[in-house]
Amino acid sequence: MTSAPDLFQSQLQETGQAVETLLDTLLGPAPLTRETTRPDRLLAAMRHGALGGGKRLRPFLLVESARLCGAAPSAALLAGCALELVHCYSLVHDDLPAMDDDDLRRGRPTVHKVYDDAMAILAGDALLTLAFDVMGRPEIHEDAGVRLELVTGLARASGLGGMAGGQALDLEAEGRYEADRKPLVLSDASIRQLQAMKTGALLLFAVEAGGILGRVDTKTRAAISSYGRAVGAAFQIADDILDVEADSATLGKEAGKDADRGKGTLVQRLGLDAAKAERDRLARTALEALSGFGVEADMLRMTARFIVSRGH
Amino acid sequence: MTSAPDLFQSQLQETGQAVETLLDTLLGPAPLTRETTRPDRLLAAMRHGALGGGKRLRPFLLVESARLCGAAPSAALLAGCALELVHCYSLVHDDLPAMDDDDLRRGRPTVHKVYDDAMAILAGDALLTLAFDVMGRPEIHEDAGVRLELVTGLARASGLGGMAGGQALDLEAEGRYEADRKPLVLSDASIRQLQAMKTGALLLFAVEAGGILGRVDTKTRAAISSYGRAVGAAFQIADDILDVEADSATLGKEAGKDADRGKGTLVQRLGLDAAKAERDRLARTALEALSGFGVEADMLRMTARFIVSRGH
Repeated sequence: MTSAPDLFQSQLQETGQAVETLLDTLLGPAPLTRETTRPDRLLAAMRHGALGGGKRLRPFLLVESARLCGAAPSAALLAGCALELVHCYSLVHDDLPAMDDDDLRRGRPTVHKVYDDAMAILAGDALLTLAFDVMGRPEIHEDAGVRLELVTGLARASGLGGMAGGQALDLEAEGRYEADRKPLVLSDASIRQLQAMKTGALLLFAVEAGGILGRVDTKTRAAISSYGRAVGAAFQIADDILDVEADSATLGKEAGKDADRGKGTLVQRLGLDAAKAERDRLARTALEALSGFGVEADMLRMTARFIVSRGH
Repeated sequence: MTSAPDLFQSQLQETGQAVETLLDTLLGPAPLTRETTRPDRLLAAMRHGALGGGKRLRPFLLVESARLCGAAPSAALLAGCALELVHCYSLVHDDLPAMDDDDLRRGRPTVHKVYDDAMAILAGDALLTLAFDVMGRPEIHEDAGVRLELVTGLARASGLGGMAGGQALDLEAEGRYEADRKPLVLSDASIRQLQAMKTGALLLFAVEAGGILGRVDTKTRAAISSYGRAVGAAFQIADDILDVEADSATLGKEAGKDADRGKGTLVQRLGLDAAKAERDRLARTALEALSGFGVEADMLRMTARFIVSRGH
């Protein structure tokens, strides 16, 4: 008999491989209608930034939420790839010397190290742009209105009022723009808002997109949104805890950098133990949000548990 | 009696002011549904990159093409603003030290000079993202399928097979990636393809978007596309000629920089006189493409003449 964690891991892995295959196709060399040509070097930089890495947690959440909401997993997978392209672009830009200045990502040199800053900027731009192209494709849903709701939702989750805005607030939290360059002391509420934007918005959108695809009623939508908000917040706290606890070898990136920079994390604000308690409280909130569902929500429940217990 | 050039200039100015007003609203402080908050500093950087400048030629082309194609100018104006947001993001990123390294744009310090590189990267990212949000808004067209065609068209024109790809090819044309760092010698055809992507794609899309909004027949669409391709190509050659001839004071940017970098322009490849002849030939091609239309296409005809005759 397969245990629940094994079932979850095999499902996560399977979806991850499907995402990889689909991204490989989406980033193929042949130009599409209305494209002139796909320049080799730019395409290679985009592929370096998008392929061969990550748990693909956002597409996984989207696919599993869609399954719960009665939408076709294959369509959800393509929407998940559009979302993943946005996540990948954000990593390519965040790693730039002008931003977080990271040389390693998942144990490999970052895009700007393999190519250069200019090509990394363009590769990020082009990954972001491609995301909206992909999200508009007819394979995702027969109703253009549904696809448009996904396009708009993705834009809002990613833009100035979402991920990009959260990253901007994070730069301020580092104290970059203080005259004496001291880190700002952020309140709990400010840190939570920053994190809800920086990482929470895309994770929430992943879950909500499943509901959009399944055209669920208001009550179901509220339940999955509540789940999405809680796992989004739990994910970031878990990440900050990992960053403090892990060493470079395990994590494949330079650990402890966030703390060095004085970024506003809840770990720093509350201490490690209180942060762990908060992470676990959020996981319980996520599970409670799904209390109206039966076994069909088990995969999302396992995802919430995975998020707070993962080692890397 | 108002002369044709006066009529054109007043129309261009009027649309430009309408674009400015609408962009000012789109970049207002209040968060939209699904946005958390709009961080002050990021919003200010975006506004610096998008407001107070330029002829707004792309929205103008879109509005005039839409008018010719029987679509409502007010809806076309909003679509034009979405397009202009993409243009503005590209300028913010192109001006970065890692890219073209320009300190001045339209006589003002560039975004990365006023803020810093990180904020300029994020401001560009968020302008690009906002463009797709705006292009999906119901005010643009009642039919979601039409808006989705605009979203996809904008993505293809802007991405790896369009503008971003053209910029990547341009970096290669500078010889950045040659071992001995000598400029590549590009063929006429390669230069034309590079330019069709780098600047032509957005100008062509501006014109085609009018046809999408007006749901024109295949023949009309082919005619305006032919016009759009020709004015796009003419625009870039005219720009390269201006760059060689103008001085910094007139142009508001550092003149002659392209030539210093050994970029592949047709001026450099063919010489100034032959480039001017080619620019004028393309303008004639643009006018011929409109030969099936009557006076209702006069504004687009004047636009073609303006593009090849403008002093700055």
